[in-house]
Amino acid sequence: MRSKIAVALCATMAMAAPALANDDVIKNTSDPNNWAATSGDYGLQRFSKLDQINRENVKDLKVAWTFSTGVLRGHEGSPLVVGNRLYLHTPFPNIVYALDLDNEQKILWKYEPKQDPSVIPIMCCDTVNRGLAYAEGKLFLYRADTTLVALDAKTGAEVWKTVNGDVKRGETGTSAPVVVKDKVLVGISGAEFGVQGYLTAYSIADGKKVWRGYSVGPDDQILFDPAKTTSLGKPVGKDSSIKTWNGDQWKIGGGSTWGWYSFDPKLNLVYYGTGNPSTWNPAQRAGPDGKQIDQKWSLSIIARDADTGVAAWAYQLTPFDEWDYDGINESILVDGIDVKGEKHDVLVHFDRNGFAYTIDRKSGIPLVAEKYDPAVNWSTGVDLDPKSPTYGRPAVVAKYSTFLNGADVNTKGIVPAALGTKDQQPAAYSPLTGLFYVPTNHVAMDYEPFKVSYTPGQPYVGATLSMFPPEGDNNLGNFIAWDAGKGKIVWSNKEPFSVWSGALATAGGVVFYGTLEGYLKAVDQKDGKELFKFKTPSGIIGNVFTYTHKDKQYVGVYSGIGGWAGIGLAAGLDKPTDGLGAVGGYAGLRDYTALGGSLTVLSLP
Amino acid sequence: MRSKIAVALCATMAMAAPALANDDVIKNTSDPNNWAATSGDYGLQRFSKLDQINRENVKDLKVAWTFSTGVLRGHEGSPLVVGNRLYLHTPFPNIVYALDLDNEQKILWKYEPKQDPSVIPIMCCDTVNRGLAYAEGKLFLYRADTTLVALDAKTGAEVWKTVNGDVKRGETGTSAPVVVKDKVLVGISGAEFGVQGYLTAYSIADGKKVWRGYSVGPDDQILFDPAKTTSLGKPVGKDSSIKTWNGDQWKIGGGSTWGWYSFDPKLNLVYYGTGNPSTWNPAQRAGPDGKQIDQKWSLSIIARDADTGVAAWAYQLTPFDEWDYDGINESILVDGIDVKGEKHDVLVHFDRNGFAYTIDRKSGIPLVAEKYDPAVNWSTGVDLDPKSPTYGRPAVVAKYSTFLNGADVNTKGIVPAALGTKDQQPAAYSPLTGLFYVPTNHVAMDYEPFKVSYTPGQPYVGATLSMFPPEGDNNLGNFIAWDAGKGKIVWSNKEPFSVWSGALATAGGVVFYGTLEGYLKAVDQKDGKELFKFKTPSGIIGNVFTYTHKDKQYVGVYSGIGGWAGIGLAAGLDKPTDGLGAVGGYAGLRDYTALGGSLTVLSLP
Repeated sequence: MRSKIAVALCATMAMAAPALANDDVIKNTSDPNNWAATSGDYGLQRFSKLDQINRENVKDLKVAWTFSTGVLRGHEGSPLVVGNRLYLHTPFPNIVYALDLDNEQKILWKYEPKQDPSVIPIMCCDTVNRGLAYAEGKLFLYRADTTLVALDAKTGAEVWKTVNGDVKRGETGTSAPVVVKDKVLVGISGAEFGVQGYLTAYSIADGKKVWRGYSVGPDDQILFDPAKTTSLGKPVGKDSSIKTWNGDQWKIGGGSTWGWYSFDPKLNLVYYGTGNPSTWNPAQRAGPDGKQIDQKWSLSIIARDADTGVAAWAYQLTPFDEWDYDGINESILVDGIDVKGEKHDVLVHFDRNGFAYTIDRKSGIPLVAEKYDPAVNWSTGVDLDPKSPTYGRPAVVAKYSTFLNGADVNTKGIVPAALGTKDQQPAAYSPLTGLFYVPTNHVAMDYEPFKVSYTPGQPYVGATLSMFPPEGDNNLGNFIAWDAGKGKIVWSNKEPFSVWSGALATAGGVVFYGTLEGYLKAVDQKDGKELFKFKTPSGIIGNVFTYTHKDKQYVGVYSGIGGWAGIGLAAGLDKPTDGLGAVGGYAGLRDYTALGGSLTVLSLP
Repeated sequence: MRSKIAVALCATMAMAAPALANDDVIKNTSDPNNWAATSGDYGLQRFSKLDQINRENVKDLKVAWTFSTGVLRGHEGSPLVVGNRLYLHTPFPNIVYALDLDNEQKILWKYEPKQDPSVIPIMCCDTVNRGLAYAEGKLFLYRADTTLVALDAKTGAEVWKTVNGDVKRGETGTSAPVVVKDKVLVGISGAEFGVQGYLTAYSIADGKKVWRGYSVGPDDQILFDPAKTTSLGKPVGKDSSIKTWNGDQWKIGGGSTWGWYSFDPKLNLVYYGTGNPSTWNPAQRAGPDGKQIDQKWSLSIIARDADTGVAAWAYQLTPFDEWDYDGINESILVDGIDVKGEKHDVLVHFDRNGFAYTIDRKSGIPLVAEKYDPAVNWSTGVDLDPKSPTYGRPAVVAKYSTFLNGADVNTKGIVPAALGTKDQQPAAYSPLTGLFYVPTNHVAMDYEPFKVSYTPGQPYVGATLSMFPPEGDNNLGNFIAWDAGKGKIVWSNKEPFSVWSGALATAGGVVFYGTLEGYLKAVDQKDGKELFKFKTPSGIIGNVFTYTHKDKQYVGVYSGIGGWAGIGLAAGLDKPTDGLGAVGGYAGLRDYTALGGSLTVLSLP
């Protein structure tokens, strides 16, 4: 068993070539006893080689210890474990705790930044924070007010800090930084406030800005080389972004970058997705001819050179958004995936738009693009024929086009809803099965765009929603296993609410995930059979992680209901129609759980 | 073993005579599968007949389920369990949840009162609430703003509500109501704001006031019968309270009533303690001759007729307070305690002043009064000689008299500190061993009185403190076993911090308690040997409780650091000197735990 795993791991982990990455990150993330990066490693596989907890004994798991964070609202992300220390982060006010695993989790230090609470109402989807990065004795915290802080991991003292964005323009920080080589990467939130999104690299040594690549705008801002940057295998040409916008709208054009960032050391490429174009009212974004216009590079996957930030390729998943299908979801890097008999080194991306993409990660060419929820109805499919004039594009069903139906018209029953078939909750990949384990939303919406005007720092949304289970169903979520080579669901478990928690696959043959009611669940990788569940103090929107301490494997997860799915509880909104309808069917969560952030850590007896 | 327990129980529980009490309360509290009253029963024994969890298997306890309350600050008291429902309460804003034990703890209803947050700074020692009362299908909640609410236990709907006190005068509600016969009793907090304390009985049917007995004031306010109300066996005579005050000072004289209330159905007497006289600066309370004056009936145990409120007897534990030795701690009712070869039906009271009193509960005569922490130094002992002119009084050591030393003088090294050798954290009694299990504070203080003037609704304290472990020690607490017949410590376990959690003794031979760092501990009743510990999410100031559901015994406790001992964390005070020194040595708690209210429930696998 163990040797089989080892072979599988060698095959899939081979991409981790220390020479080209940050040596310390590689060293720490290569040791499965740590959880040294927020998604486990640069490939965001969320797979652990630990196998002490396995499908036979997982039923015996018991809570080993717990830790309340002192913060009520939604807890996304996961702690980091490096050596004998565990580092927790919290939502606003973004407290960081260092716990001593050798000494009954005693608090070694606490860092509590003083931030202006006026940032809170500017955070569209709760005051979440998705985690820390660790490298070379420093912890990197990206605060709600967009201050990026490097902390001395030993003492919690600030080594340097720098302000990445402008809260007054609606820019906020929610994403987890990633350290790549000698730089730390951070994104920006605020597409609901009309930001012009960007990804920025700072020197880990002193916090100096190295490069910044915008999502939309002129070539020198988006760092696209008209001749060398490609899309679907061809150079993008000059002004690839601004020529797809009406006038200066790109300046408030969205394309936020608040998701997860993966890195391929061999190719020296960083992968991430971009958010929706602002506003949600497509009529306001139509071209000069009154027709759809792409608004590139919103809703795209972009691959950038880690050193220069220059884009190698970009692929727009959803041109001209009419549904808020943010492209920010993670791109998981896996080598040697078989697509129609050929092996490919790919990235796999489960998009908000309901399609799962398997993409050659060197060329950016999509190999597979299939619905990962059969209920998805806004599009009939993605055109993968290179000779077709609509190559790479999803075919929109006119009935579900909120643009064709027009402003102030309520388009009914679109699947997925604005929060997508998956949102930020990251999927996991297991080399044991070759399958992806995906926490999904199974939600329909009615969508009514309305005219909105832009004021810096004010919401720039322009649509009201109603969210509910797709017709004929009463569940708002599924947890699925996905074959990315074939583009097929292998098994699917119904969940009453969306699964808003990041999954974890382990060499023990188990997949873990959390539910919005608060259960930590373990299922069999092969068939999804439930092997264990435990009710944590609050609903789970955090990501499951694992580590070893003194030869014992632990599995942990934040609980603390919130995020978009839990915004009703987090922000005290009672009715499904509150928050322009953002609360939706999740209002029912009030029957299951209440606010409160804590970490629950389990082990075998 | 079981039959021995049964015999012991019959002996000690015989006082529960249904005819004279509330039949429904008796029925519910007599069933050990419930936890139907905040301290288990009318006698406040905090003993459960359940024995499925015992000293052999308690080591195997595992967390069965958890529930975050959605409130951050200190969680005192415990939930109630009646049948298949568990009722939780929270600190301000005093939310109540009804959970369905038959259906994975789903929330059946939630009651969240709208209270003016201006009450928060008027709560001296955190925004705590000590629990609910249940009788005849109604739940009684006593809110921070002193509103007493009767809720329909089925639906959470308000049946009636009444306002007991006046927040503008510094009166607040923190105590757990108790239902006695057709009445519900509630006290008042606010001796640090110059209230005139009182205990009030309301009709459970409609919330109409039945009687109110003040702690200090004229006979018709304190409901003392000069001829029939006794103290130390003799009638108190006319004006027993006001003649012990200088002028009208009794009107702002303190004597709050925020502790626990016990009830003896046979004698039809309710027992409770009264708080400190206001202010903490004794010089301001001296008699017209400039000397000490008793300030009766502050710092007293009072026994009142349940129907009329008229006092049967009163006993002042600490005349003329100079240290804030509130007498509000609970009086535990036990029958047949052997004192010097004679059996007595007694109440046992562990006072803030460091003495444990064993008192004949019919006559109010003290039988035993001994230090339950050898470090207590402010008094050499209590005079129990009926012929002595100082009968019933503690002998004050002049060196530790903050009055004799005078205002603006810092009296050093007094033991106990203002929060007493025990505060509100209730002790437990086990009929198996005949011993009391007492969570204690082991804290010394420096105390410097200063002149303060009275303004309604403003703090009226008049002393600054410094709190630290007694000389030569480094622990701030002990958990002890006490022989109330002999007045001796049987065993004592050191704890780094005060034990601010209520103990629970069970027929399994185990005693449970929580610690401020967050551990739920189980020790052997016989010798105090630690059998189990588990780290809950936050520091514990709640009281351990137990119940049975579907033939399985569960043990639970709130965690959620706060209360006086945790006020530093709860109110964001960093330094030991903050809050006039109320934070003290507990500032070190920041190294162990953070805020956050949740319930942790454990069972055998």
